Amino acid sequence: MNMMSVTASGTTVLLDAGAIFPGLDHFGVDLAIPDVACLERSGRRVSGVVLTHGHEDHIGAVPYLWDRIAGPIYGTPLTLALLASKLEGHGIDPAGRLVAVRPGERVSIGDVEVEFIRVAHSMPDCAAVALRTPAGTIVHTGDFKFDDTPLDGERVDTRRLGEIGNDGALALFADSTNVSRAGRAGSEQDVAGAFEELFGRTRGKLIVAAFASSVYRVQMLASMAVRFGRKVALVGRGMRRTAEIAEQLGHLDIPPGARIRDRDVSRHAADEVLCIATGSQGEPLAALSRIAAGRHPHVKLAPGDAVVFSARAIPGNQRAIGRLKNAVARLGAEIVDDGTLPVHVSGHACEEDLKRLLELVRPRCFVPIHGEYRYLARHAQVAHETLNGRTQVLLVENGDRIAFDAGGGWVMDTVPVGNVLIDSAHGAEVAGAVLRQRRQLAGAGVVVLVIPEGARGGAGNGLPALATGGFLRDGEAGAVLAEAPALARRLIDAAPDTERNDSPALRERVRAGLEHAFRKRTGRKPLVLPLIVEN
Amino acid sequence: MNMMSVTASGTTVLLDAGAIFPGLDHFGVDLAIPDVACLERSGRRVSGVVLTHGHEDHIGAVPYLWDRIAGPIYGTPLTLALLASKLEGHGIDPAGRLVAVRPGERVSIGDVEVEFIRVAHSMPDCAAVALRTPAGTIVHTGDFKFDDTPLDGERVDTRRLGEIGNDGALALFADSTNVSRAGRAGSEQDVAGAFEELFGRTRGKLIVAAFASSVYRVQMLASMAVRFGRKVALVGRGMRRTAEIAEQLGHLDIPPGARIRDRDVSRHAADEVLCIATGSQGEPLAALSRIAAGRHPHVKLAPGDAVVFSARAIPGNQRAIGRLKNAVARLGAEIVDDGTLPVHVSGHACEEDLKRLLELVRPRCFVPIHGEYRYLARHAQVAHETLNGRTQVLLVENGDRIAFDAGGGWVMDTVPVGNVLIDSAHGAEVAGAVLRQRRQLAGAGVVVLVIPEGARGGAGNGLPALATGGFLRDGEAGAVLAEAPALARRLIDAAPDTERNDSPALRERVRAGLEHAFRKRTGRKPLVLPLIVEN
Repeated sequence: MNMMSVTASGTTVLLDAGAIFPGLDHFGVDLAIPDVACLERSGRRVSGVVLTHGHEDHIGAVPYLWDRIAGPIYGTPLTLALLASKLEGHGIDPAGRLVAVRPGERVSIGDVEVEFIRVAHSMPDCAAVALRTPAGTIVHTGDFKFDDTPLDGERVDTRRLGEIGNDGALALFADSTNVSRAGRAGSEQDVAGAFEELFGRTRGKLIVAAFASSVYRVQMLASMAVRFGRKVALVGRGMRRTAEIAEQLGHLDIPPGARIRDRDVSRHAADEVLCIATGSQGEPLAALSRIAAGRHPHVKLAPGDAVVFSARAIPGNQRAIGRLKNAVARLGAEIVDDGTLPVHVSGHACEEDLKRLLELVRPRCFVPIHGEYRYLARHAQVAHETLNGRTQVLLVENGDRIAFDAGGGWVMDTVPVGNVLIDSAHGAEVAGAVLRQRRQLAGAGVVVLVIPEGARGGAGNGLPALATGGFLRDGEAGAVLAEAPALARRLIDAAPDTERNDSPALRERVRAGLEHAFRKRTGRKPLVLPLIVEN
Repeated sequence: MNMMSVTASGTTVLLDAGAIFPGLDHFGVDLAIPDVACLERSGRRVSGVVLTHGHEDHIGAVPYLWDRIAGPIYGTPLTLALLASKLEGHGIDPAGRLVAVRPGERVSIGDVEVEFIRVAHSMPDCAAVALRTPAGTIVHTGDFKFDDTPLDGERVDTRRLGEIGNDGALALFADSTNVSRAGRAGSEQDVAGAFEELFGRTRGKLIVAAFASSVYRVQMLASMAVRFGRKVALVGRGMRRTAEIAEQLGHLDIPPGARIRDRDVSRHAADEVLCIATGSQGEPLAALSRIAAGRHPHVKLAPGDAVVFSARAIPGNQRAIGRLKNAVARLGAEIVDDGTLPVHVSGHACEEDLKRLLELVRPRCFVPIHGEYRYLARHAQVAHETLNGRTQVLLVENGDRIAFDAGGGWVMDTVPVGNVLIDSAHGAEVAGAVLRQRRQLAGAGVVVLVIPEGARGGAGNGLPALATGGFLRDGEAGAVLAEAPALARRLIDAAPDTERNDSPALRERVRAGLEHAFRKRTGRKPLVLPLIVEN
């Protein structure tokens, strides 16, 4: 997820506050957000938050940080409308804290002047920002690409970026996501041909899975549906909510009469329906998964229908997407993805685009951001080659603090930063210790040992009782398990007097001793829970 | 994994016996093998096993099924040599059970005559098989592609396949892996150009990650190394073992003096070394992961080195591979994958190849195999279009039993089949119940409740003691936890007399009641372990 803070003359501005899905090995966790404790420890008080655009990985952490971060939150109208909807879902009343800024406009946050600059991306109303500080101007691209034919005509404001470059930019922080792709990013219009072919040839329902935030994609599909005589149903709550917000702000226009509710899909001939659905990543509760499993109340799949995956597969989701496609195939529908036809285009600048940006801004110092380390490293190399000798390139990672003066920047120090893991269904933080125990439990299960309190010192109250869950009793593991009560007894008897009346310390001694025995003799490490009970 | 059985006139032949990695949600499991219980239940005794080639997903289950399946095991010499090495690792002496058959040769297994037919794939010495049964000839491709320029000159025996087609084939079972890729599969030679470029331009060490079984790739790289003046180090035990076997059988020829041990890599100039390493899938213990983490004792990465990923990313491994690439980037080495240069070619036939096969064999009945359901369905469609009206297409899934007579086939019934899950480090089977508990533990942790035996009937021995692991005590979950002892007490008091002296039934009642309370009030379902102890 994305977050960066800039401090100048005592003013701290936060850039973006995103959330991400942290991966399948984060059991019971479905969101990771930035840990702002490092800011709090440094005693820095945030004076304002600047959001570049409305994607989850740029705004998703705001509800969770609402009470910990002070000051207004600035963003374009669509960004703030999406955030407001999210806040409402968390029962938060933004009450005047959201301040809309249009590209071309500037706001002052303490001693920092923030200018919003139009960029193109895979959703409308995205911005880069220029922060004017006493040391110089810092440009931050947010997520962007150059799109010379955006559906809404909102092209990257290259004129303004060039002016900032001509005036002399201190630093440029730029999106590295697609730096390893040669050439230029496609325009949102580039998928039109593939969809025209699909509209032309599909005899049944056309069902397109896309991210709810892909408003351009939704607009293009809806317009095409009108042209090809299909009605548009938005399937999935997220899809409908985002469309509603985009319509209110004039970013989406589905003609009256062209749209139907999902409950009315079955009342139209299959070849007169276009469904735009959530669930392109195989999320089990999203609309497309329910449709493919035959569990959607209104949309049923049949031979002749085509299901189009119009989104990239996020790494880690491939197996879930594969299972979803199998379910679609079982119902006899056609599967179309970008291996079949060009039905998706990325929202991020590719190598040639990034060179173009570097030549526009020509910063004194360049810092690649957004993307895994290998992409940052590649972007650093591209910048070095593009502006050879004329710029300084800083390759930094999370936690690195860069100091700037008028001459350039340097890594001052690195502060410990981490993620906060969230169980979002329950709005709860999942502590690292809980996650570690879950990983241990997942790998080897749990062994419970009940020790009668008087068991110490040979009082002769028999051996502890045992129970296990998710534990494999084969071979040596069974042998260690059988010996565990006696081993626990020996560990207790060997405890020093200081632990005699301290059951937490005694418990920890037994836990550590038994886990060690399991690991040493079986290579597995079940979670051992010793309980000392009255007897 | 792959396994199929064919029964004719009382003779049962098993085709392949593979193992696969079942995915990250199979905690503590690293292999899944076919469950042969369905064969045993049907009273069928296997008379022989036929292996098409030496890949793990075709031979990996043999050691685990060794004692349960009778009869000789037939395969080409390389397939059997790889199997023998695997059996040795399991402490199994094959005695005389492995019977080598060369393509073009036939063996009789009971009333079934089995003919081996040369096919090309991503490793040497692969075969299709034709089973001559009283009902007709059944052709099974194994994994294959057409490769007109294989490194060893061993092309698919299209002449023989055509003869079988001309004589009239009853059924064809064919590899569906790449049916969704248009065109033809590439030749193993097709990667040569990319590697020549890399050999020509890399200033440091060239490190290529590939599957150990990709003997053609190893041969090509070794020959190129000789040409470009680099020494070859095979890094990783699996790579060395497979190369040794391939060399013994004449499938690999690294000239004397061209090869160095990995411990000698550092004694040569970086630009005089080629390492071929295991670990292309980001496996944490494989050679490349250890190199990238700076933990390999002999091979160190440095700027100027290039690390080439010359294998496809198996779905599910993308995140691990991404982390591995980040680690490579941190050490300043260049990363090359098939997004950069064509450094990998698939071993499976594509759509046009599969049409060619269908036209060669022209079976009465066609059955797509090998691949997820969506590929089988696509292959069925391709067959239908290719041999329209001249063949019957059966789209079947695991467990479906097909009956054949001279006129064709039909799905007779479906028997329950499943996987057996293996913890291969410990050679143990992981039961479904253990896996289910581990999933429950991973998602929500464990709650342990110790209940004094006299607690029933108001004997007044106080409330049960509690302990948790991996459990999140936030909000409602904490409330349910606090109430758990009292709830357990009520559940015990409400138990019918029949459970009074039956602690397993009483324990189950408490477990179910508490898990229900957690699920109902928190949406989470921790594993509840009640223990009833003496007091």
